[in-house]
Amino acid sequence: MPRLTDYDDACAEARAVMDDIRRVRGADDVNDFWKAIAHDPATMRRTWESLKEVMAPGALDPLTKQLIYIAVSVAHGCDYCIASHRAAARAEGMTDEMFGELMAVVGMAAETNRLVAGYRVPVDAAFET
Amino acid sequence: MPRLTDYDDACAEARAVMDDIRRVRGADDVNDFWKAIAHDPATMRRTWESLKEVMAPGALDPLTKQLIYIAVSVAHGCDYCIASHRAAARAEGMTDEMFGELMAVVGMAAETNRLVAGYRVPVDAAFET
Amino acid sequence: MPRLTDYDDACAEARAVMDDIRRVRGADDVNDFWKAIAHDPATMRRTWESLKEVMAPGALDPLTKQLIYIAVSVAHGCDYCIASHRAAARAEGMTDEMFGELMAVVGMAAETNRLVAGYRVPVDAAFET
Amino acid sequence: MPRLTDYDDACAEARAVMDDIRRVRGADDVNDFWKAIAHDPATMRRTWESLKEVMAPGALDPLTKQLIYIAVSVAHGCDYCIASHRAAARAEGMTDEMFGELMAVVGMAAETNRLVAGYRVPVDAAFET
Amino acid sequence: MPRLTDYDDACAEARAVMDDIRRVRGADDVNDFWKAIAHDPATMRRTWESLKEVMAPGALDPLTKQLIYIAVSVAHGCDYCIASHRAAARAEGMTDEMFGELMAVVGMAAETNRLVAGYRVPVDAAFET
Amino acid sequence: MPRLTDYDDACAEARAVMDDIRRVRGADDVNDFWKAIAHDPATMRRTWESLKEVMAPGALDPLTKQLIYIAVSVAHGCDYCIASHRAAARAEGMTDEMFGELMAVVGMAAETNRLVAGYRVPVDAAFET
Repeated sequence: MPRLTDYDDACAEARAVMDDIRRVRGADDVNDFWKAIAHDPATMRRTWESLKEVMAPGALDPLTKQLIYIAVSVAHGCDYCIASHRAAARAEGMTDEMFGELMAVVGMAAETNRLVAGYRVPVDAAFET
Repeated sequence: MPRLTDYDDACAEARAVMDDIRRVRGADDVNDFWKAIAHDPATMRRTWESLKEVMAPGALDPLTKQLIYIAVSVAHGCDYCIASHRAAARAEGMTDEMFGELMAVVGMAAETNRLVAGYRVPVDAAFET
Repeated sequence: MPRLTDYDDACAEARAVMDDIRRVRGADDVNDFWKAIAHDPATMRRTWESLKEVMAPGALDPLTKQLIYIAVSVAHGCDYCIASHRAAARAEGMTDEMFGELMAVVGMAAETNRLVAGYRVPVDAAFET
Repeated sequence: MPRLTDYDDACAEARAVMDDIRRVRGADDVNDFWKAIAHDPATMRRTWESLKEVMAPGALDPLTKQLIYIAVSVAHGCDYCIASHRAAARAEGMTDEMFGELMAVVGMAAETNRLVAGYRVPVDAAFET
Repeated sequence: MPRLTDYDDACAEARAVMDDIRRVRGADDVNDFWKAIAHDPATMRRTWESLKEVMAPGALDPLTKQLIYIAVSVAHGCDYCIASHRAAARAEGMTDEMFGELMAVVGMAAETNRLVAGYRVPVDAAFET
Repeated sequence: MPRLTDYDDACAEARAVMDDIRRVRGADDVNDFWKAIAHDPATMRRTWESLKEVMAPGALDPLTKQLIYIAVSVAHGCDYCIASHRAAARAEGMTDEMFGELMAVVGMAAETNRLVAGYRVPVDAAFET
């Protein structure tokens, strides 16, 4: 089990990151992932700054980004990330039906990824452009 | 390299699948993945029927589904699937900017997935509901 | 590209391993994997001794072991291992139909593995015994 | 934790799938995987129909298919699938000795898969036919 | 849950391996991994002999080897191996700061691995020599 | 194949990143990974700033960090990253013997990671502290 560092025990740099996470997310507290890396404020700050930049609305909307995050987390078998980003996706409007379709797509992709590998299919010339 | 079975050499059941793929996709030919599994018409038919059902518009739109497909294919390192679904996503309207954001999210998810595993972070109680 | 060490250029310990591989497999030459690690005879010998022991007939027959080897190699996306163990499996009697069923099982396992992860299904008590 | 839908709470389509699973498997109840996806009867039906077709006796016998299923599930780190298909394999006659050899093959394949990747070994021309 | 075989219940071959593990590691008992495979003394002996050879000091020192072991285990999502090799690394002198940098490198590698796959970047000619 | 953006065709922000990479690495040009993401200067800048921070000497020396980077890249099957970080590791002093030991450790970790998953070994209480 990781050592979780609460706000009151965190160093100034980690507290500043926690403050920014709470501000951006409008949440009372940060989730345990941040507390688990708070003793390494350089990684914590870098990870948060990157996440904040990457997950901000852009050409893709926040919900789509959360769906992609869940898909990758399922492919990597990261239970924590599945649970936490499922919560984030629901907060962005993901319905049960949408989650069901997300899982169906992830499953089919996993299946055809493996079929392609096993049959050793080279990329069509048409896809190389 | 796999044996690719063209339409003219395919059995009746494989031809029927190819016909349906071309009809649904409005394409002149099927891509090489289908030709690589055409000698096993049962797998070909089953895979196509599932894909057709899963990728149809529903609670998620076709472009979002293609983005999810690419994300999983990147996580699994399936070069063929990345190339073919990138082409499909572009046909659904994916811009370069959207692809760039997709990759950025996939990369960040991969990074935090591994941080969570390494720090052995248990799921917050708040995410278990 | 790796440096491939042929028999004539190999050190005595690597030659002894090559001799044993050729003897056990009844082959004129060893495949390139062995030539790629022949400059590290300790790893080469250890890997070969382990493989020879693990792939020998036992409670599972050699063909079943090759099918399992291919399945793992597909899941890991190891193109070389898929190609080489497919050849080995064919030498043990694997037909195209068997390979097709192998791929179908691998694909379905990949799909349900991901569904289980995404839905976070805990193990049934009945499976814990 | 997923929401598990029991038979009495399932919709008609999900009940029909549960009935078929119990009939084919000769079991009193379905395992929790099915209850976890029963609220999405389209995915449930599609997954079951595919599994039933893929796992039926064919060129490969049911036990061999279960061994392959376990191998892939170990490679993907799917604890649920390992536990449930180990139970299914035992019901098909898998002994402890067979399971031990299965694990030994999976382990060796994982090791050589990674050696091949690290040494970047290209596929022998002899394996390309 | 696996069946754990304690020393007193182990067969002579498994006991000999346990004796050697305790001798080499200077420990009173072996960890549960060994007890979980002790009913398969051939795999147990082979795995231990290989580990002992691979993890011995050589061109790389034991701590560096433990860091690499952890990195692979994180990439594969093996919670047991992360926990056990983290303990082994600490016994070799790994500080919290070193573990933090290890995780940071693993995370960045995971991120760029996926970016490279997604952008389908071919290897520079300069790296092929 | 990705579109590679050379320095002369890059936008000002991408050029600034290229300048910094060349300065830090003392190299005439950047490798193709950077040219492949140069059309997305935000991702390029963020990835470079993170890499520069993470790979700088700290509690772990630069060579150890490169070895870890290679280990993760092998586990993920990223051929580009293996080739490019192998070159970087050699520039930091990695010998063939060290690379051989690195691969041996990666291979053994992969093998035991899978054995642990297959035998479903829970973490020893002693490792939870």
